[in-house]
Amino acid sequence: MDETVNFGLIGLGTMGAALALNIAESGYPIAVFNRTAAVTDDFIENAGALRPRLTPTKSLEELLAAISAPRTIILMVPAGQVVDQQIEALAPMLEEGDLIIDAGNANYADTERRVRDSDGKPYDYMGIGVSGGEEGARHGPSSMAGGTQAQWERVGGMLEAISARYDGAPCAALMGPGGAGHFVKMVHNGIEYADMQMIAECYAIMRDGLGMEAGAIADVFEAWNDGPLASYLIEISGKVARATDPIAGGPMLDAIRDTAGQKGTGRWTAVEAQHLAVPVPVIEAAVAARNLSARIEARQRGADAFGAMPREMQGAAIGTELLEQALIAGKILCYAQGFDMLAKAASEFGWDLPMAGIARIWRAGCIIRSEMLNDMASALEAMPGDNLIFAPPFSDLLTRNSDALRKTVTTAISAGIAVPALASGLSWFDTMRTPRTPANMIQAQRDFFGAHGFDRLDGKDAPHGPWGDDG
Amino acid sequence: MDETVNFGLIGLGTMGAALALNIAESGYPIAVFNRTAAVTDDFIENAGALRPRLTPTKSLEELLAAISAPRTIILMVPAGQVVDQQIEALAPMLEEGDLIIDAGNANYADTERRVRDSDGKPYDYMGIGVSGGEEGARHGPSSMAGGTQAQWERVGGMLEAISARYDGAPCAALMGPGGAGHFVKMVHNGIEYADMQMIAECYAIMRDGLGMEAGAIADVFEAWNDGPLASYLIEISGKVARATDPIAGGPMLDAIRDTAGQKGTGRWTAVEAQHLAVPVPVIEAAVAARNLSARIEARQRGADAFGAMPREMQGAAIGTELLEQALIAGKILCYAQGFDMLAKAASEFGWDLPMAGIARIWRAGCIIRSEMLNDMASALEAMPGDNLIFAPPFSDLLTRNSDALRKTVTTAISAGIAVPALASGLSWFDTMRTPRTPANMIQAQRDFFGAHGFDRLDGKDAPHGPWGDDG
Repeated sequence: MDETVNFGLIGLGTMGAALALNIAESGYPIAVFNRTAAVTDDFIENAGALRPRLTPTKSLEELLAAISAPRTIILMVPAGQVVDQQIEALAPMLEEGDLIIDAGNANYADTERRVRDSDGKPYDYMGIGVSGGEEGARHGPSSMAGGTQAQWERVGGMLEAISARYDGAPCAALMGPGGAGHFVKMVHNGIEYADMQMIAECYAIMRDGLGMEAGAIADVFEAWNDGPLASYLIEISGKVARATDPIAGGPMLDAIRDTAGQKGTGRWTAVEAQHLAVPVPVIEAAVAARNLSARIEARQRGADAFGAMPREMQGAAIGTELLEQALIAGKILCYAQGFDMLAKAASEFGWDLPMAGIARIWRAGCIIRSEMLNDMASALEAMPGDNLIFAPPFSDLLTRNSDALRKTVTTAISAGIAVPALASGLSWFDTMRTPRTPANMIQAQRDFFGAHGFDRLDGKDAPHGPWGDDG
Repeated sequence: MDETVNFGLIGLGTMGAALALNIAESGYPIAVFNRTAAVTDDFIENAGALRPRLTPTKSLEELLAAISAPRTIILMVPAGQVVDQQIEALAPMLEEGDLIIDAGNANYADTERRVRDSDGKPYDYMGIGVSGGEEGARHGPSSMAGGTQAQWERVGGMLEAISARYDGAPCAALMGPGGAGHFVKMVHNGIEYADMQMIAECYAIMRDGLGMEAGAIADVFEAWNDGPLASYLIEISGKVARATDPIAGGPMLDAIRDTAGQKGTGRWTAVEAQHLAVPVPVIEAAVAARNLSARIEARQRGADAFGAMPREMQGAAIGTELLEQALIAGKILCYAQGFDMLAKAASEFGWDLPMAGIARIWRAGCIIRSEMLNDMASALEAMPGDNLIFAPPFSDLLTRNSDALRKTVTTAISAGIAVPALASGLSWFDTMRTPRTPANMIQAQRDFFGAHGFDRLDGKDAPHGPWGDDG
């Protein structure tokens, strides 16, 4: 093996260290640098058999000197200002042909700006979204690259080599130019928020509506993981429900405070969806639920003032089989919204996003990996750019399972179990099969108070109502 | 009356012309300018008795020459770049003590920037949100001013003079510095979107679920307008439902295409709420519904593929009395979210927003004006900064009416009538009375795949689960 060092990596945090080891293990010697030198020392000390392929360096100068052309420097530093500072520090030392890759969780708009800023500079710039957490970074992530075809040809081999594989196919691909990679990664995270929230709502129905213990809930998730819902998130839901609290001895899940954190990518997705005018209500509901989860005092106060929710589920409560069907429908609707957003972004930004390819590289390595994504890849291959709900087998799955979603949502709401994500998915689906919505009322109101005008169903050109002096 | 001209206005579109006439009628002579001179000529020609107080001008130079110090120039031009161009054109001609007011629908962040840009320049800059449509601008809007106390003292008298009045109290007030006025106006519009959407959902239930004709629906809105829902939007809902189509002869409402337009302020509200991490799900649902209303072909295709929605309402369908109660609850929840967003903005931006004062100036002149806002003003006066749901009489109204909202939402969803705004309001309310949400599942998942950590209910410091090598 050629032991020439062409790669460097800056930032040996959890993700950076894991990625450096993965790159080295995949056959690419790499020089590493961390602002705090002790971190670099620890990293090298614990690198075991991979040590010969890792070159520790103590300064940016030393890092660049350790890398031979064509040099590729991977940034694994916190998103935001730190990335800009790092680029600024590197830029004067770089030469024609050098390439900076931001493999952190950048906002795609920042990546677009940084690519523009690299114009006329000696270095090239790429933004690559990497999903899979520490485990993925170490043993095989899903990589969503943004850049030119030429840039992809330069680093695609390495990205494929380090990536997860599904049936042998590497989970790494070029998404499009500029910020396209980070954009797709952002939507991935938005879907992740929504997927997790829908699972949490099913958990709430089992825990609060059906009165099930954590162990019994673990059984259900394990069973679901053998069916159409088979996925990493369902798998780990079973594992966390099964785990025993090492301190108090009961179920681990029952000891965890119900305040969900977030790092902002779900929120970014909701914001960008607004800019694109694409409805992603399931993702919005998931972000809102995390925000509300932090309001512990207000929620207790609400329970005191209005009576605590949830109440006992009444009558013929739903069973876990129906719940599985509901989650299948909800999941399809959530992914349909996410891919819808990607399709709108593609047309809005002039990106040729590989819709089926995106589903393919999400099949392994990333947090939302699932069997269903394999079918989604096929469906999008057959009907690229179309909405997933219309593509078999998903149209059939929705036909079979949407009544279960309806029953689940109404039963949960009746009992005061908040199911905002499942309910928003269903509202979206119902609207998508409503030929005539009540938006004619909104248009009439807008014309009445603001003379905004309306279209007529008969196509005649009479855009204002007979409101007289009032309107 | 002193006929010295201290005011100028640029932009004689629908809103600008109406505002200029209102200002003149209120006793303030004003010079006007429009880029297209013919518009100015028409305006003057149709100004009737107000002509002596209106000075037409044909250039910015002429405009400024027509105004005596202290000069106040009001911009009524399209939001965005046009405002910047106008400021740039004016700036070199302005003198110490001159004041520019943007009374258009600016994004508050643009107003913040323009105020900053005015630093060190001879002129002062204010952004003022004006609501009420053409009718309000002409005969009394609600004005939300952003600026310093000194600026308010300078123009507050004029703003109060032209404004709508509620029990004699003018609907104009200083909100806070910089972009505060435009921010409050933006949230006003977000609430307006949500209020309209909830009314439209009740309309859908009556039209599609209860099979009522437009005339019968008009009767219901008229009756509601005599009760707790009394408001401009309910009033005009009755009027548009009552109106006859002058072309085809049937109900006007039935001839209007169900595609709702939007100018973006609802979307802005959703975006800013995300930045502030405040859940405003009812507003988000309203924006999403408008976006989906545009997808006419996709909705028809959905109906063909999955069966058309809505289906007939089954069993003991809800009555219009229950629906009224549901809308009362939904409306309170929507306003509670809007005021919650204002409270968060106040603390985030260091604004001392007059929460009760905002409710007071919304009681008349603006699109969301209602009797309920009078009670909201009292409630917020008594409990400033607190969530409206906890303040009497709204806590009592919610206690009395939330079951009707629950029944309405579940009945509508069962019949496939999409009620995303009503349902999101209820989900938010149910979450706000849930002491223990399922967010512990989300925290467990996040810790499993990303080592993000969690808090324990028992307060012990053991932030990670026993996930072993898997996690």
